[in-house]
Amino acid sequence: MKVGIIGATGYSGEWLVRLLARHPRVTLSLVASRSQAGKRLADVMPVVASGVGDLTFVASEPDELAANKDVDLFFLALPHGVASEFAVPLIEAGKQVIDLSADFRLGSTALYQEYYGVEHGAPALLESAPYVLPEIADLENPDWRKSKLIACPGCYPTSVQLPLYPLLKGGVISDKGIIINSLSGVSGAGRKSTEYFSFSERVSSVVAYGSPKHRHVSEIEEQLGCFNGSPVIVQFTPHLIPVHAGIATTIVVPAIKGISELYAAWEAAYPEGKTPFVRILPTGTFPETKYVVSTNQCMMSAVKDERTGNFVITSVIDNLIKGASGQAVQIMNHWMGWDSKEGLL
Amino acid sequence: MKVGIIGATGYSGEWLVRLLARHPRVTLSLVASRSQAGKRLADVMPVVASGVGDLTFVASEPDELAANKDVDLFFLALPHGVASEFAVPLIEAGKQVIDLSADFRLGSTALYQEYYGVEHGAPALLESAPYVLPEIADLENPDWRKSKLIACPGCYPTSVQLPLYPLLKGGVISDKGIIINSLSGVSGAGRKSTEYFSFSERVSSVVAYGSPKHRHVSEIEEQLGCFNGSPVIVQFTPHLIPVHAGIATTIVVPAIKGISELYAAWEAAYPEGKTPFVRILPTGTFPETKYVVSTNQCMMSAVKDERTGNFVITSVIDNLIKGASGQAVQIMNHWMGWDSKEGLL
Amino acid sequence: MKVGIIGATGYSGEWLVRLLARHPRVTLSLVASRSQAGKRLADVMPVVASGVGDLTFVASEPDELAANKDVDLFFLALPHGVASEFAVPLIEAGKQVIDLSADFRLGSTALYQEYYGVEHGAPALLESAPYVLPEIADLENPDWRKSKLIACPGCYPTSVQLPLYPLLKGGVISDKGIIINSLSGVSGAGRKSTEYFSFSERVSSVVAYGSPKHRHVSEIEEQLGCFNGSPVIVQFTPHLIPVHAGIATTIVVPAIKGISELYAAWEAAYPEGKTPFVRILPTGTFPETKYVVSTNQCMMSAVKDERTGNFVITSVIDNLIKGASGQAVQIMNHWMGWDSKEGLL
Amino acid sequence: MKVGIIGATGYSGEWLVRLLARHPRVTLSLVASRSQAGKRLADVMPVVASGVGDLTFVASEPDELAANKDVDLFFLALPHGVASEFAVPLIEAGKQVIDLSADFRLGSTALYQEYYGVEHGAPALLESAPYVLPEIADLENPDWRKSKLIACPGCYPTSVQLPLYPLLKGGVISDKGIIINSLSGVSGAGRKSTEYFSFSERVSSVVAYGSPKHRHVSEIEEQLGCFNGSPVIVQFTPHLIPVHAGIATTIVVPAIKGISELYAAWEAAYPEGKTPFVRILPTGTFPETKYVVSTNQCMMSAVKDERTGNFVITSVIDNLIKGASGQAVQIMNHWMGWDSKEGLL
Repeated sequence: MKVGIIGATGYSGEWLVRLLARHPRVTLSLVASRSQAGKRLADVMPVVASGVGDLTFVASEPDELAANKDVDLFFLALPHGVASEFAVPLIEAGKQVIDLSADFRLGSTALYQEYYGVEHGAPALLESAPYVLPEIADLENPDWRKSKLIACPGCYPTSVQLPLYPLLKGGVISDKGIIINSLSGVSGAGRKSTEYFSFSERVSSVVAYGSPKHRHVSEIEEQLGCFNGSPVIVQFTPHLIPVHAGIATTIVVPAIKGISELYAAWEAAYPEGKTPFVRILPTGTFPETKYVVSTNQCMMSAVKDERTGNFVITSVIDNLIKGASGQAVQIMNHWMGWDSKEGLL
Repeated sequence: MKVGIIGATGYSGEWLVRLLARHPRVTLSLVASRSQAGKRLADVMPVVASGVGDLTFVASEPDELAANKDVDLFFLALPHGVASEFAVPLIEAGKQVIDLSADFRLGSTALYQEYYGVEHGAPALLESAPYVLPEIADLENPDWRKSKLIACPGCYPTSVQLPLYPLLKGGVISDKGIIINSLSGVSGAGRKSTEYFSFSERVSSVVAYGSPKHRHVSEIEEQLGCFNGSPVIVQFTPHLIPVHAGIATTIVVPAIKGISELYAAWEAAYPEGKTPFVRILPTGTFPETKYVVSTNQCMMSAVKDERTGNFVITSVIDNLIKGASGQAVQIMNHWMGWDSKEGLL
Repeated sequence: MKVGIIGATGYSGEWLVRLLARHPRVTLSLVASRSQAGKRLADVMPVVASGVGDLTFVASEPDELAANKDVDLFFLALPHGVASEFAVPLIEAGKQVIDLSADFRLGSTALYQEYYGVEHGAPALLESAPYVLPEIADLENPDWRKSKLIACPGCYPTSVQLPLYPLLKGGVISDKGIIINSLSGVSGAGRKSTEYFSFSERVSSVVAYGSPKHRHVSEIEEQLGCFNGSPVIVQFTPHLIPVHAGIATTIVVPAIKGISELYAAWEAAYPEGKTPFVRILPTGTFPETKYVVSTNQCMMSAVKDERTGNFVITSVIDNLIKGASGQAVQIMNHWMGWDSKEGLL
Repeated sequence: MKVGIIGATGYSGEWLVRLLARHPRVTLSLVASRSQAGKRLADVMPVVASGVGDLTFVASEPDELAANKDVDLFFLALPHGVASEFAVPLIEAGKQVIDLSADFRLGSTALYQEYYGVEHGAPALLESAPYVLPEIADLENPDWRKSKLIACPGCYPTSVQLPLYPLLKGGVISDKGIIINSLSGVSGAGRKSTEYFSFSERVSSVVAYGSPKHRHVSEIEEQLGCFNGSPVIVQFTPHLIPVHAGIATTIVVPAIKGISELYAAWEAAYPEGKTPFVRILPTGTFPETKYVVSTNQCMMSAVKDERTGNFVITSVIDNLIKGASGQAVQIMNHWMGWDSKEGLL
């Protein structure tokens, strides 16, 4: 299969290039970028040393790309608002599309406008674009494969849903009083040319931001509400920490059942060998972001505090991989019926 | 006044040396350390370039130190369990003592044993050793100055109490459902010679730890309970992040009143000009650890989330200064009736 | 004495604010910045917590500043090319000026144009503006104090001249085959809003740059040539490393005499107690940048390699302090006849 | 082919595990480690998530390992002095061995003793153990494949030899006056449990060390002397910088020919497409360590300084990969006649 990447020069786009370049089932035949058009991939991304280094970035006009016969499936690694502009002609031209932006993640244009501050660019496509966190969508909505346009989850929401999905479904935790604190590496903000994101400003500092209505709150609540069958309200506070990549999420939530029921629910949802990208650590241990950085893994563990009656759940992912590009490749693998791990080990 | 430091070679001890060396009201006349005995201060701490560099570390036998006529006030920067061994003869000899360890922070030996895992070394001194977070103790317990032995608060508890004290006192927040997440620089663990704390293991990783019963839970709950007049239970989850110094604490707590009442309570407790080490930032802004690292400041701000009914409160301190050595110097300043800022700007 | 800072918002400017705010002999009465005009100092620099926080940035028109009666001495912390624009009216108005830029460091406008690529903005002032590295200028050119305009040395050149000056003067080293490698923290580039200097791009990487004709080559060679009495050519290669502050310089140079003569020359030039900001470490030890970061110190040591006949000399400074703002304050102290250390410990 | 790793728990050993686990031509059938014996690989190295995670570390007695029928080729990732103890019985048992330590790198036991401070443990094996930097050994000594024991080069020497080999051979540079400065990530020191290598001590500092007789001087000079046909003396100064992985080497050397001859010599020795792990960048650009970290690449470039008559050559590698484990795998690939890139992309 021939694949292309539109917006290949961000940090997620760069990882997509690296993953797709060595994926045994696909040929990366197109990389599009307005800012780098005309340049060789190998010159823009010196770390990409294999065969695809000879690809040259093309300028990315939507209609032209839609007419391209060399690409069957497009990955959109574009800012929200821009992705939908490209999705419309691509879908009309019969291409398959995996969108890494937020444009097709939310179920309602009103919610999109509330959280993203702009009108939705392709409301007609919204309903037919399933939200696919692969481990969960395969269980909840296996028909997602019939769609042509797939919305790839956000980074923070991935780190939240993987641990909470089996627990809400199984009645192991309360659906009230969910408190989420996340720590994210700086790459979560994308490639940046601002003083705020300069090395000297970030290197020895840590700061909360975006509270109380970070954009990902909408996505987290909508998805948790789906599993739960009724609305879920969360308190979500992200923090910026001085690492390049990695998210560590700590969730405090009132327990309904015991720690063994929590682990049983996790193990049932993520059976060893079947869900290679979820790894459950024993209670009392805490996953480090370094265990998962540069991989498509999510690791999680939990403790119960008998004094407070809460579970404290921690999960870690690489925001650029399981939180973006790796998840997109995993979606492609499931979509095509390939082994989930193809190109991801 | 002549002061001495026992255990001067840890990170807090080193800051104590730097602060006391330039304090205009005191002479640093003794530094004691078993591991560095006989070495010149300037050789052990190359960054200390001023006059005190000529001091030589002495081996630190408690009785000998108690008999030392050259020191009026001792700072103990020792591990818990060891500090109390030194405190007993020093107090018996009539010295004034500010203890930076945990040995005299808790009100009960049972609680101490539960959280620190060892029997308390000087139970007879416990009752007469007030816990002094200066901004709060001056309001709650001004008689603390009459004691000879002062317990200096822990780092995490300082970052929690300064924002919560006026809010619990003023009924601005609920005393139930207090969820605290803290991020700490690696120096919080002290000087370390373990693989876990090696550069390569820490540099690009972040991890939660110590949940659910980190030692500081006991101190936080005991102090909050005092302000509140009834027991307070908290969920406290610390995290280790790749910076040398700095603590960022994020507290989620159900609101009873509005954001303006919260700010009014803070401003009443910490009037500008009177409490030089507390700085309140406007709602919607978030303090960064870099604003306070290398200073004795605590900065804090809060937002109210009308959707959840919670306040999200963030505070930052330098764990080695306002969380240890600077606070100890501030205690001395208040104790002696000097300006709070002496030697701390 | 009343002092002002023009261009107070860069990293050197910020350190100037901090140093001058607590300097016991001066009042910081003006901070000028086009980009921050109208804002309170405390809001722009949260870490500056003392009295000067109430100063408000003024827009910095040269003539207006020259007419300001509230300032006796101006520090210019401006980009090269801009500094000379301000210097002209200030000098005409009889102000004293310490310029931290490169505008008055070189002796010839032709050399300036060759290395900085622009025409010199105030050639008439050049001759009467001495280059003052205080430890050296006091010996070589004590009349510098009679000038009204002083050129403050660059960061790399400071780290090179302090070790080499006594060795060239004393014939301890060859004046041919001087190979200099320097490693600099990212703040050396100033406040930056470019992708290249973003956290993610810098955090785990190191790179040489600027070879073979970095701008500071001109300054290094001109000054070394002065000490030497004949031209000196050096090979200078700077490197960018992932720390905020600090320069480590490693110099390889053919030895003419032995290691004890090298140390004797250093000790004669920098007698202990007389030059408080130069510290000489024993042969076989190597200074770390952490020993000097946040201080005005330069530390140095040397080894002789009998196999190659070279000395390997290492020196470290804080590029923002001994390499800029601290040095400027030290110049002021010497200029006014104050103790060298005033405001710098 | 079945391979085993002895000493699999250091940083190089861990990379060996990762590389060999996904190498399409080999089965990793044994991992030996005294410190981790009995533990599952996946528990010791959480980041290793693939099939080999089920391997269990065995205690590593040399004779027992030599008798193991499940391993054809052993990689020794052991400290110097220890590696030779294992090599003797393995070679006697007919195994193939690639040794990543320094034990078989030097040609003479006297030089080994001078630089490593211990007597050589297996002098009888020394002569039959070729030193193989693959790109160079294939040209200089293609018969190396007939040996059973291969010495894998050190990290610094790799970064020095790849750029200098074609230049010395081609008479492009002088063989006198070679000045080498290298910057290395902290992992170069191996897994460490010392205060010196703790996060807080390393994170914001940089320091030279090991001058003038770092152990790798012996290896660099011996190898350069081989290419040159006569002894070469170098000045080598390594520095420790706050990154986990990566070496940046800057070499200053008097030019004999011009920059185009330098590039021609490089391109002749490392033709594009033939030496996939050497990449030559244009003059005036400088390779960053981030271009090569996590890869087996060496990147290099050079400028000529007409003022000094020197070349300034910079090269970068990942010390753990092209400087150790990746090079070892590349050696295996060449040894077995496989494609150089197998398992290394």
